[in-house]
Amino acid sequence: MSTTTAPAAGRTTSDGNYRVADHLVDRLAELGVDRMFGVPGDYSLAMLDHVTHHPTMRWTGCTNELNAGYAADGYGRLRGFAALCTTFGVGELSAVNAITGSYAEHVPVVHVVGAPALATQALRRPVHHSLGDGEFGLFMAMHEAITCARAALTAGNAIAEIDRVLTAVRDRRLPGYLLLPADVAQAPVSPAAEPLPPYVDTTDPEALDAFVDAAQRLLDRAGSVNDVSVLAGLQVHRFGAAPHLQRLLSVGVPHATTPWAKSLVDESAPAFAGTYSGATGSTEDTRRTIEDAAALILAGVQFTDLNSGLFSQRITRARTIELGARSASVGAATFAPLELPTALAALEPLVAGLDRSAPAGPTTPEPTPEPAADDAPLSQDALWQETAGFLQAGDIVLADQGTCFYGMAPHRLPADVTFVGQPLWASIGYTLPALLGACTAQPGRRGILLIGDGAAQLTAQELATVIQQRLPAVVVVVDNDGYTVERAIHGPDEPYNDITHWDWTHAPAFFGADDGRAAATKVRTVGELRAAFADAASHAERLSIIQAVVPRDDVPALLDTLARALGHAKR
Amino acid sequence: MSTTTAPAAGRTTSDGNYRVADHLVDRLAELGVDRMFGVPGDYSLAMLDHVTHHPTMRWTGCTNELNAGYAADGYGRLRGFAALCTTFGVGELSAVNAITGSYAEHVPVVHVVGAPALATQALRRPVHHSLGDGEFGLFMAMHEAITCARAALTAGNAIAEIDRVLTAVRDRRLPGYLLLPADVAQAPVSPAAEPLPPYVDTTDPEALDAFVDAAQRLLDRAGSVNDVSVLAGLQVHRFGAAPHLQRLLSVGVPHATTPWAKSLVDESAPAFAGTYSGATGSTEDTRRTIEDAAALILAGVQFTDLNSGLFSQRITRARTIELGARSASVGAATFAPLELPTALAALEPLVAGLDRSAPAGPTTPEPTPEPAADDAPLSQDALWQETAGFLQAGDIVLADQGTCFYGMAPHRLPADVTFVGQPLWASIGYTLPALLGACTAQPGRRGILLIGDGAAQLTAQELATVIQQRLPAVVVVVDNDGYTVERAIHGPDEPYNDITHWDWTHAPAFFGADDGRAAATKVRTVGELRAAFADAASHAERLSIIQAVVPRDDVPALLDTLARALGHAKR
Repeated sequence: MSTTTAPAAGRTTSDGNYRVADHLVDRLAELGVDRMFGVPGDYSLAMLDHVTHHPTMRWTGCTNELNAGYAADGYGRLRGFAALCTTFGVGELSAVNAITGSYAEHVPVVHVVGAPALATQALRRPVHHSLGDGEFGLFMAMHEAITCARAALTAGNAIAEIDRVLTAVRDRRLPGYLLLPADVAQAPVSPAAEPLPPYVDTTDPEALDAFVDAAQRLLDRAGSVNDVSVLAGLQVHRFGAAPHLQRLLSVGVPHATTPWAKSLVDESAPAFAGTYSGATGSTEDTRRTIEDAAALILAGVQFTDLNSGLFSQRITRARTIELGARSASVGAATFAPLELPTALAALEPLVAGLDRSAPAGPTTPEPTPEPAADDAPLSQDALWQETAGFLQAGDIVLADQGTCFYGMAPHRLPADVTFVGQPLWASIGYTLPALLGACTAQPGRRGILLIGDGAAQLTAQELATVIQQRLPAVVVVVDNDGYTVERAIHGPDEPYNDITHWDWTHAPAFFGADDGRAAATKVRTVGELRAAFADAASHAERLSIIQAVVPRDDVPALLDTLARALGHAKR
Repeated sequence: MSTTTAPAAGRTTSDGNYRVADHLVDRLAELGVDRMFGVPGDYSLAMLDHVTHHPTMRWTGCTNELNAGYAADGYGRLRGFAALCTTFGVGELSAVNAITGSYAEHVPVVHVVGAPALATQALRRPVHHSLGDGEFGLFMAMHEAITCARAALTAGNAIAEIDRVLTAVRDRRLPGYLLLPADVAQAPVSPAAEPLPPYVDTTDPEALDAFVDAAQRLLDRAGSVNDVSVLAGLQVHRFGAAPHLQRLLSVGVPHATTPWAKSLVDESAPAFAGTYSGATGSTEDTRRTIEDAAALILAGVQFTDLNSGLFSQRITRARTIELGARSASVGAATFAPLELPTALAALEPLVAGLDRSAPAGPTTPEPTPEPAADDAPLSQDALWQETAGFLQAGDIVLADQGTCFYGMAPHRLPADVTFVGQPLWASIGYTLPALLGACTAQPGRRGILLIGDGAAQLTAQELATVIQQRLPAVVVVVDNDGYTVERAIHGPDEPYNDITHWDWTHAPAFFGADDGRAAATKVRTVGELRAAFADAASHAERLSIIQAVVPRDDVPALLDTLARALGHAKR
């Protein structure tokens, strides 16, 4: 699942001793992690020396722990594993929302929490960052439902428990938690002689055989390759099955992705049929491709409310092959254990063997909207159309879960663009620190952040770190004077949907970047937006902030549909 | 404990129905709450209509939920009860650190969480802000250790459960949690006919009698009023015993407070002996007053590490009367149940009856430091001395748990100043949103925020709300280029103690206050600081931000002592 390199390098401290903290950092390096995000605290300071002095690991201090957790999540999505370090109580609990989001959206993040020394804990002393009651296990217990593995480390169990938790995070693609007391971090240990155990595919060969037989029969009934469609979901990415999907699609089978899985496939491919958001949130062409196919392969799809046009998918089970993370079904029959990459690999020759002689049915070309005039006031429609035109191959696009996500989701992306959204957890403000993490994970790629003004206020300070890290990025702050997505759902004129109005053109000066490392501008027309994009493109090495003013109650069509339904569903 | 007013006013919605949400808001009004803090979410929007349309309740939308939780905490400290409203999952979990801090520091805050409708929960649908697994009780369960009462509301239990949780929060001075599904908030109910049940003092009269006898014997042995000292702690404030303490002290008994309880008593009174931080963190005069008294009354004191010079208190139990929240002891004998206000009231005549004929012993006058020259570069010492001189009666001073708290703690405050710090939970950044809450709780009082640059970055965006609410406040950002308190403990030159360097003079423009509602300046000398304070004083209606540049590694003496000990204790 994850590439493993040579065993731990075996670094030593100045006194010649290898410590628990060294083992942890070496294991992270083995998992491909070259960056730890977090905020220091006195219980973690000494441990962090082993991060900053490590030959390949680097420390990125964030402005607060929620943001650090979001940054780690962004890094983990791009890199396949991430590490967050906070301090006991105040730090770890500030990051709980980020960790829970990583759990909901299957992002492997290990959260290392620096804790009071075991000697202090044994005395049950009322120390700072505790409740003062001598209890030191309460906060770890709060992580039970939101992590796949947890350990309270001691000098005796540290090696085994670190390896157990890291392996679980790697294999289950979920967050894990390590409580690392200050004295345990400094305990001497021997460098590991072996790498972490490799991932083991738990597929039962009999389940696989039976699945293949059933799938073959269903596909045979369907007919030619043009009668089969594939809808791909997030789990394909998370469980490392994207290459298998790629091979399966290479014969030209029509396919779509859910919004959650956007950018999983090359959206410029001729057989790509768009982003499927259920019956109510899809174009007719996309809807027909998925819902009316004679045979449908659902690969790693989870239908959630915002990922399905509020559960408006119309999938006929009898003609569907559904692949989950560790089981698969054909019609009403389920085969397990059967892992997603294995099932996709098994389907590949079956799909390749379908009749490919019939020409592909005519697809309705997407109507190309008339380009707006330069002096036209900026609208949501124009904003997303221009943004789509601005994207380049290789960009990382992060769209916050408001008008930005729904505005961008229907637009086709250039090849090799990574799209990051959070439609299940849907924590507004997430994408701003995630930009820091994503761009750090794959240096050299340009980050494009699309975020509403309300959302951006939650996490704005992390722009300072983006600037300090000199990450090439463009940030579009959609200035529509409040929580527009919520106005669309309920209370359009209620004061709780108002926000304070900021002038983002002063952000570079406030965050200390008056030396040209960042620039900001405000645009109100299509022409001003185009000029701002052109300016950003010609200054690729800096952070460009564009405050894009659009009408207050203007919402993308897809969001409008969802918001009406949500407003109704709440009662 | 808390004043109760008339039963619920009985508001009705446009359709003539009184709803669960109305009952909740009316009960909060009955408890003296006139403000709800939070961030809206689609699961809470309809409920918020009942807040914004209530005759006495107002909504203050914050920039994020952690900040909203801190603001509610600040309001609760000044007002005695506070309300926070967030949305399911993403919102409530962002506020967990704030709620845990309220728990650790005994602040009564009810956290109302807007949840998916019960109909949705019953279908176990994978909706946004959930883990997608059909579970809706996981996040409430995470609040078990950090709230004194919790309820998942239904139409059937809402009235009883709201009343139970609010009463527990009021009486136990700890946070509570209400999970309020969107449909339950709208369920019709009858307005309450009776106010909430009054607080019941659980004191056992026999325990009280025995306590008084024992206390009398100990005080008789001590001698005159000058041989008795009082050390007052935070619980005196939290459990409503400040008036009782005031009466007990009125005969001129020497007394001090812990740093946690700073401003509990009038620090300009002649018998006030200073702030006691254990043997290592106190002046000799203060130390002697407390540790060498023939009889010592410890009133509501909890010794925590940062509240006692790292447990350096030397208290001789045999000559100590110790009053806790619900028990009291004289020497080694404990009397319970015996509540703090009752115990203090019972001690009052005993202390008043002590011999008052002997003149008070000579107190060593505190050395008045030479005022610095105008052109002297600003130092930590000069900063706190000038700040102390700037304070006026009635100010609310919030000092963040770094150099600010330790810098201000030793300075005597004018009468009627409220001092807010957080020495047990010690979550940096807390005080900035707490300023919003504290100033909102008692309109008209001036807020003085003292915060380090590293700490201020965690929660900076809430300045926008302070400006929008037009709260009169002065914010001193101590610019010492990083986490100085942590540099003092470990890794003075390690990169993890660095922060990005901001220019706070641009904060008003960034936060949209270019209309004179806020102003900011940077000062580097004592004279510039004096001018900035004078300018702030002459513009009382606006927010004044002062970026005070001090040397990077300069730390107040008290913090220096603590940091050395902490750095040592960690290993």
